[in-house]
Amino acid sequence: MVDDTDALIARTPEEFRRKLDIEVHTEHQVIEIDAKNQRVAVQAQGAPLRWEPYDELVIATGSAPIVPSWDGVGARGVFAVKSLEDGVRIRQYIDSEQPRHAVVVGGGYIGIEMAENLRHLGIETTLIEQLAEVMPSLDPDMGALVSQGLRDLGVRLLLQHSVSGIEVKSGRVRALQTNAGIIPCDLLILGLGVRPVSELAHAAGVKLGVKNAIRVDPYLKSSIPSIWAVGDVAESTNLITGQPGYVALATVANKQGRIAGLNLSGASIPFPGVLGTAITRVGTLEVARTGLTLAEAQNAQVDVVAVRIQSETKLGYFPDVSSITVKLIADPKSGRLVGGQIVGGTGSGKRIDTIAVAATAKMTIHDMVDLDLAYAPPFSDVWDPVQIAARALVSKMSQ
Amino acid sequence: MVDDTDALIARTPEEFRRKLDIEVHTEHQVIEIDAKNQRVAVQAQGAPLRWEPYDELVIATGSAPIVPSWDGVGARGVFAVKSLEDGVRIRQYIDSEQPRHAVVVGGGYIGIEMAENLRHLGIETTLIEQLAEVMPSLDPDMGALVSQGLRDLGVRLLLQHSVSGIEVKSGRVRALQTNAGIIPCDLLILGLGVRPVSELAHAAGVKLGVKNAIRVDPYLKSSIPSIWAVGDVAESTNLITGQPGYVALATVANKQGRIAGLNLSGASIPFPGVLGTAITRVGTLEVARTGLTLAEAQNAQVDVVAVRIQSETKLGYFPDVSSITVKLIADPKSGRLVGGQIVGGTGSGKRIDTIAVAATAKMTIHDMVDLDLAYAPPFSDVWDPVQIAARALVSKMSQ
Repeated sequence: MVDDTDALIARTPEEFRRKLDIEVHTEHQVIEIDAKNQRVAVQAQGAPLRWEPYDELVIATGSAPIVPSWDGVGARGVFAVKSLEDGVRIRQYIDSEQPRHAVVVGGGYIGIEMAENLRHLGIETTLIEQLAEVMPSLDPDMGALVSQGLRDLGVRLLLQHSVSGIEVKSGRVRALQTNAGIIPCDLLILGLGVRPVSELAHAAGVKLGVKNAIRVDPYLKSSIPSIWAVGDVAESTNLITGQPGYVALATVANKQGRIAGLNLSGASIPFPGVLGTAITRVGTLEVARTGLTLAEAQNAQVDVVAVRIQSETKLGYFPDVSSITVKLIADPKSGRLVGGQIVGGTGSGKRIDTIAVAATAKMTIHDMVDLDLAYAPPFSDVWDPVQIAARALVSKMSQ
Repeated sequence: MVDDTDALIARTPEEFRRKLDIEVHTEHQVIEIDAKNQRVAVQAQGAPLRWEPYDELVIATGSAPIVPSWDGVGARGVFAVKSLEDGVRIRQYIDSEQPRHAVVVGGGYIGIEMAENLRHLGIETTLIEQLAEVMPSLDPDMGALVSQGLRDLGVRLLLQHSVSGIEVKSGRVRALQTNAGIIPCDLLILGLGVRPVSELAHAAGVKLGVKNAIRVDPYLKSSIPSIWAVGDVAESTNLITGQPGYVALATVANKQGRIAGLNLSGASIPFPGVLGTAITRVGTLEVARTGLTLAEAQNAQVDVVAVRIQSETKLGYFPDVSSITVKLIADPKSGRLVGGQIVGGTGSGKRIDTIAVAATAKMTIHDMVDLDLAYAPPFSDVWDPVQIAARALVSKMSQ
């Protein structure tokens, strides 16, 4: 789809210099933070270690893919996916080694996207997921729609399967050991999620929180004065539970970066928090979620009631109408919106924003029924599918 | 697009009877409401006038197209557009009389939709609008994008033109008289908006309000006990100004119908009001609005500040990316959102719902910047265009 990977780079060091008067040092590694003396130890290739002083330090070390401790995980043909470079390396491997049997481990966003793209390249692809359905950030009843979407793309799904090891021959992956037997493969993609790269901060005495992400206050300051943290390395407050959580998404990172930058420049703006709103595409299916799933609500000991409805993306007489399934989750006492999930055809996914804004505003499902949302036959039913779900939940709660 | 017009009828009288146990009398006309004695005078064709008693009366007489008092407005080939039947009659006229020069008067939703469809049928089409741009429910700077969209479809636009009369020959329209001369035409569509059909209510003593729509309280009761009003014949409260307004849209009618039905059955639910959220499509352009425009804010004596940004519907490396223009309007003191307008390619229009929900929740533009909206490259930039507009307005206000 994109021929030149440079087109995927948002800003170059040169642009930072020219447009923003910011010095960017690439290929420099910070190997220690000396919080007491407010300085960092910097190592550039071929240069002696040097100490750089700071007044304020922002840690934005991001996340790294979770790599399991299986034997053989370092073999040729085994890839974790995080960066642009990972994508380039996988593509080079495919071009040079022409793998025929790919296995993707993990049915989250990365695993699903990789599986779809491998199928587009004509490679036989198996996706292995430990849970009952792919997309663990959705409830299983919604995840089942995504599982079917993957099957429709020709991806073989092995659900409720777990991996125990990798078989290697001549330094290259040749099979995967699972609880259901050996699966031959010459390309193995690990889509097991990411973890915050917080070791450097931790060594400096910065307090960590959920999943070892850096604990931050609402202004994005860490536990140590003059040290801030943003993005995939930092926690973020969940707007529904009010509790710290870990959401490694670009949207959150960008917003935290903006707020920390303003606060560093003298402002005092709290970052209100996140809903974990996310969207992806699987073939022609659009998949989106926000707030808490049933499982997340249970973990947070939030009492909930849920409903799932099926409707259409536009009026039924349009030739390109498609099905849309909306799930809404609310507090059974107050009716306050707790979360939502959407799976459907073109035009479905971004409707999650309606739910996200309503949840941010602490609206109830009754409030949602009355919302003045846009209607015209090419765009929606007179009642938007999100409102049809809200109405169904109002009915269910009044029984 | 739709071969069988029956497919466009939501519910038949038979369905009402069978599914809902509701007697529907079509082709019956109520010619008088006797509020004092709680009865209506009903006239069915070929039957004597009869009085029907009521305990509660709901007036849902809807709206009618505004027809000007020009001479010749009753000529063959002149059509106002409101009902399904109007569409059928226009189509029959086109099929039998093969008009070659169509003129549409009025650049609102109906006028624009008619102009586009006439072009699709290959008929030379001119649209005449009194104001500087089409789509008076948008500000002129946004309307200009829609004007261009119409020109791209081959519609000839005559802006800032007014009509003074119709020339008729042998009972059929043959030209339109305007302030800029005579425009020959053999099909004339009037898209001058609608007015509430409130004469019957008015004669019964029911109090009228904005644009002669029936004044209702928040429970949708009229000024006379046991008489309710909903839909295009009734007023609705504007959520921004708190003042009564007139919005003749299906979304409002459906919500008012639901609330009045619940209240008639013993509930006591207020209808909170509307933003006038609306959406339409012009060729490949999606056009949407919510809340107040600059002109509406000025009329309501609401002080506002506005910004207009241009962004893209998805990340720029997708081949089907298109431009999206977002305008946001806010209170300059509090930053509270007052309105929004969107014009752009596929995937633009329904983003108006994000603005509508935020405005309903009385969010500020600062709140909007922090919203956790869904991002993935096929759907949006990391900052949703609505948030890019909110950021631009925050910057503008802090200057």
